[in-house]
This record gives sequence, C-alpha cells and structure tokens, in this order.
Amino acid sequence: MSNQMDQKAVSAIRILSADMIQKANSGHPGLPLGAAAVGYTLWGKEMSFDTKDPEWVNRDRFVLSGGHGSALLYSLLHLFGIGGLSIDDLKNFRQLGSKTPGHPEYGHTAGIDATTGPLGAGLSMAVGMAIAETHLASVFNKPSYPIFDHYTYVMCGDGCLMEGISEEALSLAGTLALEKLVVLYDSNKITIEGSTDIAFTEDVRKRMEAYGFRTLTVEDGNDIDAIDAAIREAKTPCGKPTFIELRTIIGYGCEAKQGTSGAHGEPLGDENIAKMRVALGWDEKEAFVVPEDVYVHYQSIATEKAKAHEAWNTLFADYCVKYPMNKELYNQYFSNGEWISSLKDDAALWSVEDKPEATRVLSGTILNRIASSVNYLIGGAADLAPSTKTYMKDMGDYSAQNRPGRNLHFGVRELAMAGISNGILLHGGLRSYCSTFFVFSDYTKPMARLAALMNIPQIFVFTHDSIGVGEDGPTHEPVEQLTMLRSMPNFNVWRPCDATETVASWYAAIASTNTPSALVLSRQKLAPMKGSSKDALHGAYIIDAESKTAPDAILIASGSEVELAVNAKAELLSKGIDCRVVSVPCLDVFLAQSNRYQESVLPSEIRKRVVVEAGSSFSWGKIGGLDASYITMDTFGASGKPSLLMEKYGFTVANVVNEVEKIVKG
Amino acid sequence: MSNQMDQKAVSAIRILSADMIQKANSGHPGLPLGAAAVGYTLWGKEMSFDTKDPEWVNRDRFVLSGGHGSALLYSLLHLFGIGGLSIDDLKNFRQLGSKTPGHPEYGHTAGIDATTGPLGAGLSMAVGMAIAETHLASVFNKPSYPIFDHYTYVMCGDGCLMEGISEEALSLAGTLALEKLVVLYDSNKITIEGSTDIAFTEDVRKRMEAYGFRTLTVEDGNDIDAIDAAIREAKTPCGKPTFIELRTIIGYGCEAKQGTSGAHGEPLGDENIAKMRVALGWDEKEAFVVPEDVYVHYQSIATEKAKAHEAWNTLFADYCVKYPMNKELYNQYFSNGEWISSLKDDAALWSVEDKPEATRVLSGTILNRIASSVNYLIGGAADLAPSTKTYMKDMGDYSAQNRPGRNLHFGVRELAMAGISNGILLHGGLRSYCSTFFVFSDYTKPMARLAALMNIPQIFVFTHDSIGVGEDGPTHEPVEQLTMLRSMPNFNVWRPCDATETVASWYAAIASTNTPSALVLSRQKLAPMKGSSKDALHGAYIIDAESKTAPDAILIASGSEVELAVNAKAELLSKGIDCRVVSVPCLDVFLAQSNRYQESVLPSEIRKRVVVEAGSSFSWGKIGGLDASYITMDTFGASGKPSLLMEKYGFTVANVVNEVEKIVKG
Repeated sequence: MSNQMDQKAVSAIRILSADMIQKANSGHPGLPLGAAAVGYTLWGKEMSFDTKDPEWVNRDRFVLSGGHGSALLYSLLHLFGIGGLSIDDLKNFRQLGSKTPGHPEYGHTAGIDATTGPLGAGLSMAVGMAIAETHLASVFNKPSYPIFDHYTYVMCGDGCLMEGISEEALSLAGTLALEKLVVLYDSNKITIEGSTDIAFTEDVRKRMEAYGFRTLTVEDGNDIDAIDAAIREAKTPCGKPTFIELRTIIGYGCEAKQGTSGAHGEPLGDENIAKMRVALGWDEKEAFVVPEDVYVHYQSIATEKAKAHEAWNTLFADYCVKYPMNKELYNQYFSNGEWISSLKDDAALWSVEDKPEATRVLSGTILNRIASSVNYLIGGAADLAPSTKTYMKDMGDYSAQNRPGRNLHFGVRELAMAGISNGILLHGGLRSYCSTFFVFSDYTKPMARLAALMNIPQIFVFTHDSIGVGEDGPTHEPVEQLTMLRSMPNFNVWRPCDATETVASWYAAIASTNTPSALVLSRQKLAPMKGSSKDALHGAYIIDAESKTAPDAILIASGSEVELAVNAKAELLSKGIDCRVVSVPCLDVFLAQSNRYQESVLPSEIRKRVVVEAGSSFSWGKIGGLDASYITMDTFGASGKPSLLMEKYGFTVANVVNEVEKIVKG
Repeated sequence: MSNQMDQKAVSAIRILSADMIQKANSGHPGLPLGAAAVGYTLWGKEMSFDTKDPEWVNRDRFVLSGGHGSALLYSLLHLFGIGGLSIDDLKNFRQLGSKTPGHPEYGHTAGIDATTGPLGAGLSMAVGMAIAETHLASVFNKPSYPIFDHYTYVMCGDGCLMEGISEEALSLAGTLALEKLVVLYDSNKITIEGSTDIAFTEDVRKRMEAYGFRTLTVEDGNDIDAIDAAIREAKTPCGKPTFIELRTIIGYGCEAKQGTSGAHGEPLGDENIAKMRVALGWDEKEAFVVPEDVYVHYQSIATEKAKAHEAWNTLFADYCVKYPMNKELYNQYFSNGEWISSLKDDAALWSVEDKPEATRVLSGTILNRIASSVNYLIGGAADLAPSTKTYMKDMGDYSAQNRPGRNLHFGVRELAMAGISNGILLHGGLRSYCSTFFVFSDYTKPMARLAALMNIPQIFVFTHDSIGVGEDGPTHEPVEQLTMLRSMPNFNVWRPCDATETVASWYAAIASTNTPSALVLSRQKLAPMKGSSKDALHGAYIIDAESKTAPDAILIASGSEVELAVNAKAELLSKGIDCRVVSVPCLDVFLAQSNRYQESVLPSEIRKRVVVEAGSSFSWGKIGGLDASYITMDTFGASGKPSLLMEKYGFTVANVVNEVEKIVKG
C-alpha cells in the first residue's frame, strides 16, 4: 500500500526535477513531473537493482526512451544513491562536463543503461536487451539456477510511439514473445505542437494487441497502488510482452502549466515552482533540499534491494561449483573480448583462397569462422541474409521457441535492427552484428550514430556497395553512403578489396571495444590482390609499390576499385609511368595513424594523385587535395549491367590510365 | 463479372513479367505474378486514367510501394498503351538506358507516379498525394464542380508494412481521415528469409483498424470479382481510409516456385516458364508475344476510360468560365513556378533588419513572406514547429475537419514527413516543405534521397544546426549531417550566415525546379554581416575582401562561423595579416559554378586557407586541400552552454587568428 512517505518520495522527484531545470534554465519538466509516480513505483517497488553495483549483470534494465526526461532519471539515481550522483551533480544539470547532461548518456553516468534522446530509440534498445536476456538465459540457466532472469523496462511517450522505430521494434517483440519486456507508456496526450489529437489519434492499445502484447491500463498515473499492481501483473508470465498505458498529466504538480505543451520543454519559472511546493505539500522552500526522512526512505529501499544481488551472488557461486564448464563459458562471454586479439595471429582465420570472389561471400565465410570461436556473437539481417551472406551455419535461428538460436531474423526493419543490436550489446555478455544492403544504411543511420556515441563496438555488414549492384538501379546503388558513415565520429568504415582485407576488416570489427564498424562489401567478384596484407589494419597501405625511389603518381583506391588501380598501374608502367597504389580499406583508421605512418604511405610532396572509388568525392578531398584527379561517383547511378555501369561512370582501366597520364604530364 | 478475357488479360501480365525477368536474367517475379489479378482489376476496372495523357491532373494515382515488382507496372503500362511503352521496352527490362529500369523511376517512364524500391516509401508518398488531393479539392472544388476528386491507390507487401515508415504514414492517414486513400496489401506471407512467421506475426488488419482504417479482406487474390467488389467498397465514403488485405500466392502460376521465397527475386527459369504457359492456358509459346485479342481488350478498356477525362475537360472548361478567378488561381498553382523568379527582385522579400537574430527565426519570417505570395505552399514540422519556426501564420491547420489549412502537423515522424512531403509534390499543383531539428535529418535521409533521385524540389528546414544547440547535448548536436547531405547528388544544402543569406537560401529553394534543398539554420542569434549579398546565390562569394591585391590567406566559413571568420580577419589585419573571407552558404551550388567563378573566389594559387565550420571536415577537403587548416567538428559534441561548447571545440576568434597566423607564417 502506498503511504505518505511514498507520496513524499514522489514529490522529491518532482521538486528536484523542477529545481534542476530551473537552475540550468533549460530542460524538460513535463515528463519527470508527469511520470514521477511511475518512476518511483517502478524503481522503488518493483525493479531489481543494487545501488552499490549498478553494473550487476542480472539487474532489471531500465531505458528512458523519452530521454529528454533525464531529470527523472537523475533524480532517481541521486535519491537511491546510485553511482554517487550527488546533489551537486544535480545542480550542475546540463552543464559542460557534468555527470548530468541534457540527455542520459550511457558510459558517462553510472546507472544509465542506454543513451536516449532520439525518440523511440529506447524501445528498440530495450527489445535488444530483452532478446539478450532470453538468449543468455537459454545458454546459462540450469534447473534451480536462473542466472539470467531479469526484466527489461522501457518508458516511452507519445512521441516514441509515433516514431516508426516503435512499430519495427515492438512488432518484432510481439513475434518473439519477449515476455519479460515491459513497456510503460507515459500517456499524457500532449506533444510540442499541442494535443496529440492533431497527429496521433490511433488506438495505441489496440495497435499493441495487434503486435501480440498483453495490454494494461492505469487510469491514474499518480496512483502508486494501481501502477504497482499493473507492473506486478506485467511480471506474471503470459507468453507475451506487456504494454502498460499510464494516463498521466504532463508537468503534474505545476498547476500553471500542467496538462499543456508549455510544460514540456522549458523551465517552469521560480514562481510556479514555489506554488508547486505548496501544492505538493513540500515544506522545504530552498531549492535542492530534500528532507532527511526522504533520503532514509530511499536508502531503506536500496538496502532491501541489495539482498537480491547478494542472493544471486550466492546462487552464482554455487552454480560455478556445480557447473564448472559453464563458469568458463560465462567468463568467455563476459571477458570483454580481451582474448580476441589472439585472432590476429590465427592462421585458420586468415587463410584465403586464390580465386576471385565477392567480398560479401568472403565475409560470410569469415563470419562463420569467427562465429565458431566467438560463441557469444549473435546477429542477422533485415530480411536479406541470403544476399548479405550473414547466416551463421548450424547456429540455429533465434525465436520464441528457440532462444539458443544465434541467427536473428529482424524482418524488413533496418532502423530497429540497428537499435536492437545496440541493445544486445548494451546488455552485456554478447556481441552483435546486423546487416542489410549498403544503400539502406541510410535507414540505420540514427542508430549507428547512437552506437558511435555510446562507444559500443556494433558491427554493420553492408553489402551491394556501389553501382556494382547493377540492374536494381539507383534506388539500390549507394553513392554517398561511404562519405555519410566516414564523416561520423567514432565510426570505422571498412571497404576491403579482397579476401585478406575482408579478414582484416572482420578482425578489426570484432576486436574493437569502443568503436562501431561497418563492413562495406561487394556484390560482384573481386580478384585477390597480390600485395594485400595485414597492413590493412592500418587503414591504408601500399598495396603495389613504385619501382623507382619516388613514384610519378599515387593511385588511391578502396574496395572493388583497388583491382582497377593495380591493373592501371601495370599498364602505366609499360608506358613509362611509375605509380604507387595505395589501398584504403578504412579511411577513418588511416586518418588516426601517426603523421609518420601517413607520410610513409602518402608523402605530402607527391601531389600527383588519382583517387578511384565508386562513391562520393567528398570522402577524398583531405587525401587528394586540390591537385588530385577524382574518379568518383558524384551522381546517382542507373539500372543496367554492372560492367556497363562501371564503364559509363569511368571505372575502367583505360580511364584511370588516362587520368594518371593527364595528371603526370600536367 | 469477370470472364475468360479477364483471365487472359491477367495471364498476359504474368507471362510478360516472367519473360522480362527471364530475358534480363534479373528481377523479381514474385510480386507481378502474385498480384497480377489485383493489378489488372484495379487498373482495368476501377482506376481512372487516360492512356493518352498520363499526366492528367485528376487521374487516380497509383504507387507500387514494393517497387521491385516493377514488371507488373511495366506490363500494365505496355498493355494499356500508356506512354508508348513498347514490347521492345519490355525486352530491354533492366538494361542501361531503357525505359524499364529495375525499379520504377518517376520522370523517367511515363505513367510512373513515384520512384519506389526502398520498401514502405510508397505508402508515405501515397499519403502525401491523398493529402494534396483533399487540399486542392478544398481550394478549387465548387458545387457540381469536383475538379479534384481522385483516389490514391498504393500497393504494398509484407516488407512495406514491416518498415517503420508504414506506421508513421498510415497512422497519420488515419488521423487525417484520408478516405480516398486505398491501401492494397499484397499479403503473401513470404519474405526473402522465408515465411513471415519468423519476424512478422502481427495482426495487420487489427493494427490498421487501430490507426482508423476501414479494413477489408479478399480471401483469394486471384478472384477478380472479389477484388473488384472490395475496391468498389473502398470507394464508398466512410470517413476513413481503406486497407484491403488481398491474400495472394507469391509467384502464382509458376508451380515450381509459387508460394516460396524462391519466387521473390530471381528469374523463374525457361523450363518453369514453359510449364507456366501451359498451366495458365497461354497458347503463345514465344516470349513477349501477346495475342491480338488481349491487346484489343486492353485498348477497349482504355478507350472507355478516356471518356472520364473528356468529361472532366468539359467540366473544367465550364468551371473556368463560371469561376474565372479560380481559373487564374489554378494557373498559378499549376504554373510550374515559372513566375517565381520574380521573387529574386522582390524588395519586400529581401528587406532585412540590422540586428542579430537566429537564422531559424529569420527563416520563419521569410517563410511567412513567401507563403503569402506562394499560396500553393503547404508544409509543417515533425512536432517541432514552435522550435523550427515553420508555422505559417493565418494559413490555418490542415486536418480532417479543415482541408484548406496549409500548416501540416506530421507528428514525431521525420521519415514519413519527408516521404509525405515528396508525395504532395509528386501530386502536382503544390509546393511543400518539412522541418525538424538538423540532427534528425538522419531520419529523413532515405526520403530526402528519393526526392533528389526524383528531381523534385522538396524543401527541408533543419534548425539547431550545430553544437550551438548547447544543453541538449550530443544526441541533439549535428556534426556529420552537413557532409551527409552535401555528398548526396542533386541536393543543395544551404547554411546561411545572416538574414540576407537566409533570404537567398529560401529564394533558391523555392525557385528550384529539379533539386531538393535543405535550409540548415541556427538556434542561436547571428549578427548581420556587412558584406552579405545576393551573391550568396552563387553558393560561395567573397563576403569580406582583402585590402591588398592578393590575400595572405583565405578564411572559408559557413553559417554561424562566418561571423567568427570576419571578426578574426579584422583582428588579423591589425596584426598585419590581410585575409579574404569567403562565405559558403551552399557548397553544392558553388561546386557547380564555372571554373572561372570558382577561381575568382578561391584562386588556386592561394593555398593558405583556413576552413571554419562546426561540422565534419569531410565537407571541406576539396576546397581546403592538403595545406589548409581545418577548424571543424570531428568528434561528437557535449551538453553545456553553447558559448562554452564553442570555446571547447575551438570556435573562437582567438583560435581562428592563431590558426591563420600559424599557416601564414608556415
């Protein structure tokens, strides 16, 4: 039963949130005030966590999909004493360098399970976490040893549910029957432009039922008992995920603004906050002052909660004794991949055949090699696995009926696929990859960005990487996507030219700990390059050196165009022009090398450079400079035979030779 | 009643599609064969069009959202004789330069209402077309003069409905009660990876009902009468859009493959096609041969259909006499914007105040000026109009109850917003714009790309364009988005530095006929620049010239960083360093200028260049070259006060001065 202290504990969240936003003179009070009782009830009465160890692997996960409501999260973290978030941290809300940035940032503030802000993203990440929980449970749990059995909670608002990613992620969650996923819908009927009626009159519960969710409603989002009852019901197994609509009032407590869009995204004002203190029966007049009994209350809850972790520790210790093999397995899953650098010298991984092959096919082979040793790798494609060659043989298909399966079927849902894959990584214990045609990396971009921002080593396998796609035409031919992804901070774009470079790309991706990677792969066959080597790991290297001391020109290429450059070089040599060919499988990595290394590959005094890549020239200005010739794609492609397209757009040996001759002869 | 000839007409579609794909040795037979009866019934019995004038303004619109099924469309266009698509065109399916590319391309092949291929996109464009129809009807229709009263049909598959854009677009269609929108769902339960059960078990009809659709089912997607009855029911007004689930068999007719994912995306094989001819009772053994009676049948339908256009012509002629003012209005709406270049010399449009202001605010003012003369401009934001300043005052809000309203409320649905806006443009008669925060241009990218590919002058208003966003932090701070959009072919990115350049940007965007534009605008106030002028229309120009004959260095900047460059220049002059400042409001447009103009602004012999832009350096390599200094954003931003962020990342006069000094002193 809720009592006066519960109410006071809820008020503390509202008051702290209002104070934080007021002091920062910036922020979003609407959600923290409207959903304070929901947040308190969930965290205080139902969620399992250990304030002393916010990383406890079997804690319940919580994602605030409406990340603009960060003040709610920070208030909870502070009041529960998680990660030592102090009252001074709250006072520094939204200030440079603080632990309390405008939107919650994973890895930056302890107790934050995911970076959120772009609406709806949190829903997809929560689905990923719930998938991870079921998969790990299927791998590790034993009778009487439920090592993994936590819930994943995600709080979302109207905006999150308007975003298409909500459809993609939640429809899949229904199909996958993720019964430990609980969506808490902060339903306040208000958006920035006004009432949701102007753009969002759908019957949300009916929609969720259509996805296969159990749906519940809490008529009064301030009724702690009702909220608690609904969450408890959500925890009773029914073979479906649960969606709880909580009818809240945006900005509740601030009578001047509550229930209006004015409460959403700006400080409430000192006067309104003063009135709010009165209305909520909050005696402390000073900002950021919380009565001691409130802290004591939260602390007593925290102490109680810690017992679950202690019990789990005991259980896990027993488990390790009883199942020593599984203990080892667990250590492998949770070793943070430190052992993985041994793959750098794994001959079997690096062995390649001397015949032309599409890099997507090579990638499929290498993925399967990696998957056999990295057994905590799961992933799949957005309904394109047969084309992107991302199916792990004999690893089973993950489904409601088969949680141990490691192949995921995302459906035609690129954006949620990326978000779900991020969620799997965020959960811990697993590595994940996802895949689609390269042109559809456009759809994944917002979630690829979140991966980069969160410093998680997501792996994107993007195939059909250029006009080499051919007949499917310009809607399916990437042109600008290489530049789009290369220009994103903390994101490595690998575009290998052959088998060896494909191994290097996969190795770099799987060995990465903080940076997501994209593997950009050809549909068409590419010949193995004589000079390709592990030097690819430097991002760029001399794949075919000049004969003289200094080359007459440097040919710079990536992926399918390296072969072209190498062949042009041979022809040019017969004409007395001596070129160096530089292969650039990963421009991002090359640009991060020492100046000395960069100079050794691309000496600044050699300005006669020809760049060859079937993608936008924007990628290459910093390497080619003002004097280079660019054989690139700066228009859209067309539908036709790949060879004819390559010819039409200048990707022929003859044209490369011609451009080099022009530039050498000046 | 359907008869033998109907069946034969349907078989013709199947046979031609199979033959096209077989000859091309590439393509997707699954949809054309599975939905042949649906396509035939819709086009033959219900859709209103004039084969002689595929552009007739009041024709029913048809969008094939599953664009990979293009063979269905090409077969129909050929059999009806639309746009003169010949049998030879069909034989050249998917060949370079043909009228029959792999996916249907708007503007390339007569009778194609939208370019499709990226799944789900067609749904959003159809919603846009339906919005356009209702708006134009509200503007032009008079009692007994239904000038605009056409339907918009869109055919989609499972993949389209898995894509999040389907949720975004169709939920809004329900809210807006677009009762002349008919969605035909080719429900074949098969996707590339197998049965839809692996990823898509949702109750699609229930979901559509939740959005506010009337839903109908046709149990047998080959039953012409049942299909026809359903479409006729869909045309009976009920205040809701209609969703028809048509249960089809993928690849129907090809017994070896039908009903399996193997029918989806590869040629059926000569032998299978031969058997299919037998199974369908198709007597012609030779590929691409259609019996004369089938052509005659299609032709007779076409002749009948032409009468509707004739009747409309008569009606419209009467209308023009009776409502001469409306005739003028109509001419304005459909003048293809030729008059718009007069705005170039419109003093009122170009008048600016001499005070600092955010370019988003200036944009709001200019948008309102333009809206008052361009009364066929409609648009809105993804629930951010108060922030992006994109509300057109006194122009009303478009809704189910108010079709004349010109302000659209898209909800928090960036991707569908862009697709819907494209659809409005594709319909004809209207110009459209859409708006969100710049960082969320990521979400719009796939539809922005379609706009560029279709050569339609969409306008994107993107505000909060850099770390100047401040407290909202890195999830809301664009860094790489300028490069992402600039590197896209046929897309102009405008980032004005002050009021004059903001007018220039808006003018360029609204005067464009073939190229979409993005207006990238600041949250923060920017000072008016003394040197800013209409020369901005060249994309880049000297905004602050050197004092001597040749400058010591060139400062290159855009948007909010121009002020910084100009202030640095002044300080540098006092130190004896004489710089030129080049403002680059639109790099894409500048790169399309003559070499002579480009040389006049950025003489190639002057290599001492400093680029200043709070965005990725990838944009600038082609301008800055190997010798420039780049003051750019190549990491993510942070949450904090904008001024502190600008300082942290080097966007200060002191740092610019310092970099110029370093580069000048070499």
